[in-house]
Amino acid sequence: MGDVQKGLLKETEEDLIEKFGNDPLAVKVRVQLSEPTLTENASDWSRLNMELRRVLQAGTKPIQIPLTVLQTLPEALRQAKWDVSVTLTTSESGYSVINVVKGNDIPPYGLAIDIGTTTVVVYLVNLITGEIVDKQGTYNKQAKYGDDVISRIVYAVESPENLREIHQAVIDTVNDLTDKIISRQNLNLNDLMVAMTAGNTTMTQLLLGVDPRYVRLEPYIPTMNDVPSVPARQIGLHMLPEGLVHSFPSVASYVGGDIVSGTLVTDMANGEDIVLFIDIGTNGEIVLGNQDWLVSCACSAGPCFEGGGIAFGMRAMPGAVERVTIDPESLDVNLKVIGKIPPVGICGSGLVDCLAKLREAGIIDRAGNFQLEHSSQSARLRATTDDKEFVLAWAHQAGGEKDIVITENDVKNLIRAKGAIYAGIRSLLTMVAVDIDMISRIVIAGGFGNYLNVHDSVQIGLLPDLPEDKFLFIGNSSVKGARLALLSQNAWKEAAELSRKMTYVELSVGTTFMDEFVSALFLPHTDLSLFPSVEG
Amino acid sequence: MGDVQKGLLKETEEDLIEKFGNDPLAVKVRVQLSEPTLTENASDWSRLNMELRRVLQAGTKPIQIPLTVLQTLPEALRQAKWDVSVTLTTSESGYSVINVVKGNDIPPYGLAIDIGTTTVVVYLVNLITGEIVDKQGTYNKQAKYGDDVISRIVYAVESPENLREIHQAVIDTVNDLTDKIISRQNLNLNDLMVAMTAGNTTMTQLLLGVDPRYVRLEPYIPTMNDVPSVPARQIGLHMLPEGLVHSFPSVASYVGGDIVSGTLVTDMANGEDIVLFIDIGTNGEIVLGNQDWLVSCACSAGPCFEGGGIAFGMRAMPGAVERVTIDPESLDVNLKVIGKIPPVGICGSGLVDCLAKLREAGIIDRAGNFQLEHSSQSARLRATTDDKEFVLAWAHQAGGEKDIVITENDVKNLIRAKGAIYAGIRSLLTMVAVDIDMISRIVIAGGFGNYLNVHDSVQIGLLPDLPEDKFLFIGNSSVKGARLALLSQNAWKEAAELSRKMTYVELSVGTTFMDEFVSALFLPHTDLSLFPSVEG
Repeated sequence: MGDVQKGLLKETEEDLIEKFGNDPLAVKVRVQLSEPTLTENASDWSRLNMELRRVLQAGTKPIQIPLTVLQTLPEALRQAKWDVSVTLTTSESGYSVINVVKGNDIPPYGLAIDIGTTTVVVYLVNLITGEIVDKQGTYNKQAKYGDDVISRIVYAVESPENLREIHQAVIDTVNDLTDKIISRQNLNLNDLMVAMTAGNTTMTQLLLGVDPRYVRLEPYIPTMNDVPSVPARQIGLHMLPEGLVHSFPSVASYVGGDIVSGTLVTDMANGEDIVLFIDIGTNGEIVLGNQDWLVSCACSAGPCFEGGGIAFGMRAMPGAVERVTIDPESLDVNLKVIGKIPPVGICGSGLVDCLAKLREAGIIDRAGNFQLEHSSQSARLRATTDDKEFVLAWAHQAGGEKDIVITENDVKNLIRAKGAIYAGIRSLLTMVAVDIDMISRIVIAGGFGNYLNVHDSVQIGLLPDLPEDKFLFIGNSSVKGARLALLSQNAWKEAAELSRKMTYVELSVGTTFMDEFVSALFLPHTDLSLFPSVEG
Repeated sequence: MGDVQKGLLKETEEDLIEKFGNDPLAVKVRVQLSEPTLTENASDWSRLNMELRRVLQAGTKPIQIPLTVLQTLPEALRQAKWDVSVTLTTSESGYSVINVVKGNDIPPYGLAIDIGTTTVVVYLVNLITGEIVDKQGTYNKQAKYGDDVISRIVYAVESPENLREIHQAVIDTVNDLTDKIISRQNLNLNDLMVAMTAGNTTMTQLLLGVDPRYVRLEPYIPTMNDVPSVPARQIGLHMLPEGLVHSFPSVASYVGGDIVSGTLVTDMANGEDIVLFIDIGTNGEIVLGNQDWLVSCACSAGPCFEGGGIAFGMRAMPGAVERVTIDPESLDVNLKVIGKIPPVGICGSGLVDCLAKLREAGIIDRAGNFQLEHSSQSARLRATTDDKEFVLAWAHQAGGEKDIVITENDVKNLIRAKGAIYAGIRSLLTMVAVDIDMISRIVIAGGFGNYLNVHDSVQIGLLPDLPEDKFLFIGNSSVKGARLALLSQNAWKEAAELSRKMTYVELSVGTTFMDEFVSALFLPHTDLSLFPSVEG
């Protein structure tokens, strides 16, 4: 019941690429030049340029070449006996040659990169077929400077060295992922022609080494929303040095490129239906609207659903508990673990399940307090020196030295997180005077894992109580949008338009959000009339 | 008689700027932003961008900002209390912000740079008034690697280290000049917003660190004719790091950007009159044509007229003998020295005079051989161990330890140089079947000094025997064109068109040039009918 499978948007994604047009941000062409003669006004570059114009049917679009590529051009042409593979960045304003090598048939690849506060994910994309050839994710190495963007900013602005350090941490994170992928795929760094990153405003500024201090200070003015594209060499990303690193534009300090990327994937700005898009990452961001209007907001949900601030929280990877059932009588536990190996921790979807099932079994009350009177039912429910906890897997089952537990503190954190998200949804609806029933579709994104149990999400009051067929879980929409933009000039152009079109609502202005938040700190809510399908 | 003053084109130059339109390659605007508020979708950059659009009336042209400027933007805006001076590069395709500082009234400056094989000249140009605020010239530090482009290429291609070294030598040369100028003018490097360089193809490639080996190897294909503009930081020029360094496009390996720049200044491509443009530098290049056609060639003249390969040769600077008269009876000498100080050496115009006057006094014969039988007339004419020489200034007059002399070897070098140039002119006329009388104007450029004695130039057979009012000496046309292009988008656009329009004739193909050269190795020529005004 109620599982919306990640990947359901698969067809939609491919449809979207087709709709926008498969016209990637970098192209590779094979060119055979004639041997040069004592020709008037000819240079290596003018001869290549002329042939490229013909092959690309470039029309009036200029074809440029940066100095670094020119410096290697004469030898590249002659060593290849004038038979070369040329890679070019493409844009509305023209082409730029970023690589000239001996003629070969290796396809051009791009990197779609989601730079999350907690997790970074890289897709290797074949720019011709659009195929996701490989993918790899890991924790953001910046985590050691703080769990959330605020603590990262506090660290970064302390000194220029700190800024450099925290900038380098995310570059290293991406590079480690890229290195793994190209080694697995037996590729060369120079085969990676372009990168598209999507991250929140702070992550994007840190990726580019831009001081993020004003993101945090009222009136929350980021340095830029539109982000200049830079050659990879300028920030040290592992790929073709002249290959461009594009970054999704932000809307505001707390609605970033990851949300614009996700909004692109939902295609919500191209239809009459009102869509609610919720991205639950380290923060929770919400977008509401259709082709005529778009509003967005951010609610400080914290990193719980990515496993942050939870005793045994972890991201969705092998060893993560992704589904939980608890027998209401025996309190026996049934776990589904990613990779079918002994459990190591719990990822977002498992935590949603936990919360719902703990409540269902009466182990916690509506405020999240552990009911130790049930501890006679099972040894799993127990008090510790400073907390209460429920054992999901015994140490011997987990193959480790510790029992895997969820604590009362974890539960309280989860309730605050789900409460913030639900309060954000309610606030946004109130502000634009849209009734929940007017929403045609709710698209949920985030690093929960492979599944999101919508039924349980409604049970705990994370998602509004609507028919299940209105929900769509699309997993990591940030990296999906990055792939889409890599593959389509038009999609990339629409991203820029989306970021300008979207209105940002600052929830900290006024009391609406705080009132909603306090009301949402129960399971599912203080106002049960909002959750008619949930039994009291 | 016959002196065509440098600077006669002065009015023409200002007229040209007016004609092309004073629309410089960089602009500086003062902008006052409002204090930011909790505004939708605003960022530092979007707020600045919006205000710049208004002030610049940018229309649909994009305004970009590179990452390096973005990185300093938040502090720049806030420290200036939102009152800033913004410098932007401008081009047909749009604007790019290269500097944002506290509001001030310092005008934007540009550097017009002639990169000669022997001599490098920098003009500091006020981009608003067009005024040449200061200028400074010096020897190209690359001279230690060889006198001409061929020996420089030979050195450069030996190893990547050599290329780096010879690249750095010219960068250091320009930087020394710039440093002197800004210290004199009490300016800051960051006030220098843009640079325009004009040099021959090899000089341009070396300036940018592009391996020049194929310039020298048949079929003489340079790496590029159109040159990418690069931020100053990329090649280490002393100016605003993000300020662009533009380079004049070349026509071919041996007709470079300096000639395109000079051709721009002659305005010969915009009228019906056929003009012959001769630039005598370390090499001699010739352009012939009008609005309908342009042909060009290069003749290996060597650096004599810039003082190279001459015992006491020097460039036109204080201490250089610029005019010489010799009494045919007493062989007494009268010198005019730049700066009215004791002579140190002889510059181009002085050498032309020397050759003419030595011949007039019978000290040399038509082949340049010293006639020592005249040595009884004056102690100035004398033999040394391995040469013969004529003393222009005695050591005590020169304030040095050595007499300043011109040797038979110098004379032979000068005859080869003038012969090569005259042969080039004749070859080009022959190839396009233009009679010398069809030429309306002969424009001469080069580092001769402040004057060029046209009468003497014809006497020695350097210039064709035409009425003196057809000649115009314009000095260093390369740096003049660079200034023009700095000040006018349209002029800069025309430079690109000129380089494509101009046909290059390779003189080494066929025997025409060699035949002409051999015939020209006399004073004035073996065929005296070509020089009716010169007495036999």
